[in-house]
Amino acid sequence: MAQSTVKQKIQWIENGGITSPKGFQAGGLHCGLRKQKLDLGWVYSDVPGNAAGVYTTNLFQAAPLKVTQDSLNQEQKLQGIVINSAIANACTGEQGLLDAYEMRKVFSEKIGIPQHYAAVASTGLIGEMLPMDKIKGGIAEIGEPEHDGADKFETAILTTDTKEKAVAVKVWIDEKEITIGGAAKGSGMIHPNMATMLSFVTTDAQVEANALSTALKRITNKSFNMITVDGDTSTNDMVLVLANGKAENSILSEEHPEWETFYEGLATVCELLAKEIARDGEGATKLITVKVTGAVSDEAASAISKAIISSNLVKTAIHGSDANWGRIITAIGYSGQPLDPNKVGVSLGTIPVVENGLPVTFSEDEAKEYLLQDEVVLCVTFQDGVGEATAWGCDLSYDYVKINASYRT
Amino acid sequence: MAQSTVKQKIQWIENGGITSPKGFQAGGLHCGLRKQKLDLGWVYSDVPGNAAGVYTTNLFQAAPLKVTQDSLNQEQKLQGIVINSAIANACTGEQGLLDAYEMRKVFSEKIGIPQHYAAVASTGLIGEMLPMDKIKGGIAEIGEPEHDGADKFETAILTTDTKEKAVAVKVWIDEKEITIGGAAKGSGMIHPNMATMLSFVTTDAQVEANALSTALKRITNKSFNMITVDGDTSTNDMVLVLANGKAENSILSEEHPEWETFYEGLATVCELLAKEIARDGEGATKLITVKVTGAVSDEAASAISKAIISSNLVKTAIHGSDANWGRIITAIGYSGQPLDPNKVGVSLGTIPVVENGLPVTFSEDEAKEYLLQDEVVLCVTFQDGVGEATAWGCDLSYDYVKINASYRT
Repeated sequence: MAQSTVKQKIQWIENGGITSPKGFQAGGLHCGLRKQKLDLGWVYSDVPGNAAGVYTTNLFQAAPLKVTQDSLNQEQKLQGIVINSAIANACTGEQGLLDAYEMRKVFSEKIGIPQHYAAVASTGLIGEMLPMDKIKGGIAEIGEPEHDGADKFETAILTTDTKEKAVAVKVWIDEKEITIGGAAKGSGMIHPNMATMLSFVTTDAQVEANALSTALKRITNKSFNMITVDGDTSTNDMVLVLANGKAENSILSEEHPEWETFYEGLATVCELLAKEIARDGEGATKLITVKVTGAVSDEAASAISKAIISSNLVKTAIHGSDANWGRIITAIGYSGQPLDPNKVGVSLGTIPVVENGLPVTFSEDEAKEYLLQDEVVLCVTFQDGVGEATAWGCDLSYDYVKINASYRT
Repeated sequence: MAQSTVKQKIQWIENGGITSPKGFQAGGLHCGLRKQKLDLGWVYSDVPGNAAGVYTTNLFQAAPLKVTQDSLNQEQKLQGIVINSAIANACTGEQGLLDAYEMRKVFSEKIGIPQHYAAVASTGLIGEMLPMDKIKGGIAEIGEPEHDGADKFETAILTTDTKEKAVAVKVWIDEKEITIGGAAKGSGMIHPNMATMLSFVTTDAQVEANALSTALKRITNKSFNMITVDGDTSTNDMVLVLANGKAENSILSEEHPEWETFYEGLATVCELLAKEIARDGEGATKLITVKVTGAVSDEAASAISKAIISSNLVKTAIHGSDANWGRIITAIGYSGQPLDPNKVGVSLGTIPVVENGLPVTFSEDEAKEYLLQDEVVLCVTFQDGVGEATAWGCDLSYDYVKINASYRT
């Protein structure tokens, strides 16, 4: 089946989110880690489900990630996830690890599941200990109706984000309606390979655990690992997916005739969340998409697109709506990939500015008008092969500096 | 001889620069590429001398670099260098290359030297053709006394720089006084591996050409390649050194008993120029030095120091004088180097903030006071080996965004 046909079968759910799939509940509350904003969130399923995770590559991996991996390593199943914002529980040593295990224990007891069916996540400041009394106080309130709601969950997991990030889609498999939903946070310390980003995906599909894990890794490489805000890869970030099977489809794996439909549904949710994170980058005013085609390989295309989307000079030029394509060429040139510089083409949207490695005449006014929009696409073409990739990021603004010059104080 | 003893023999020359060594003249003028500022500079020696160069690694290497390499490849000698600012002559194809050759020809005829004794350099906007009539008009005025002076040269090579960068030192070899001077430009698109940076070093020492070339490469790796402003490696940058022999010392090479004295003199000039470039990074208010010791190798130390100095989050935290050491730890963690996270130490100047991978209590006021200074040193220690490296950079400010959001327009 052609990919475009599959994509047509994916139906977007208006105002959908992490509890759109059957059998999931979520909530959030203020437990006192932040001054006023919600700072503790949770999501859980009526029944345990197959689950998979992808984790930061940062060497200083935070304690909650270790505990979550410990949970998943036992049966590849999860039933609930608890998350706090404000404090990352990273660089907190043995005590930090004990705290993350304690957080898992208290949460799993509260919702009545085995400890290894619970995952924990944290995001925020590095190097501070979690105030466990506040965390425990918050967990004790789970179940009280005033804290229920996917919207509260989406808010509680944010740090410097300016808006909630949630999405859900539907597909039909075995004549069953299958829903995939998700919520994410992350607007700074974001870069390919899992940055300060947390993303939680739920589905009521029944999916074989190893197939789910393989799919999540492949999809993450084309979605969450293709966004950058500032080039920093954080200590804390992860993507978790939980499939509780309540849609009662026949179990999905690569052999299932409708596997591709599920895969594209999951990919759509992850890509939409990733783009929302890029769009809400710290201080961002624009979503920038970089599309590379004709590279020697997908890997080369990926490296080139990331070099462009990571360039402070490209990001500031786009912020100023300045058609300074020389900076795009410069980033291509230092990407370290094999390419023929005399065959490169660059377009701003549909406006060609470079062809065969040389400038072409274009209307500055038209380019400016295009770059003033809040979504900008930079297209780079090579004639070196069939490799292609897309990366997402945002412009670099005064507000990025403002937010980050005083995050802690 | 211990390095410290050698360093004690290096004498700094107040207000020294590119014409401090015997037999060099320099100048600069306004030829019309920029509105008012000087935009054409030159330096030449009474006699040809051994010379060496290091060039950008960017695949889109600009035309003047190709021409300069062509000159040096013939006899490893130079006698004069001509530089324009405002237009980079990069991504200008066959015509750009012809223009760079023409610029070399007109300059060498004007000062009466063979063409292959002349080097050319350009810096500025990518993708525009050099207005050759203006360049030629400017070159025709070389020799008129009102354009003479190292200060004019230092000014003419600047782009967004806010100040001139020049330095000179003296050493004694064979009882002869030997002088090494230099001038540099560069404040944006600067990153390890030769960024938008031009650096010219002159000396009256007599030095064997291959020894000079080897020394320049080694020294560049520890000076110009250890600075970053924004992570971008430009198409145009190079370092050239010209040794005219007028000090009449016996010819220097690695076998000469005083080789190390000359080497350290040259290294001192390059390091001082590199630091000046970092300090004058676009929008910078502070010079940041990152010192890494105890890494598994010098290469690992170098990669770690560059990861830290390149982090937008570290740079904004220092801009805000915020002791946010978690961002330093994060950069160490994604540097990709082998290290024991439980043995890392971090100090802000002499204030320890992390020991054995865990936070230590420190006075926020004291740290703030330290970080408010205009020179900040971040020290990172490991217990993995004897590898060490130092990198230099600057903070990331509102003005960086302002300068780069509207560089072209």
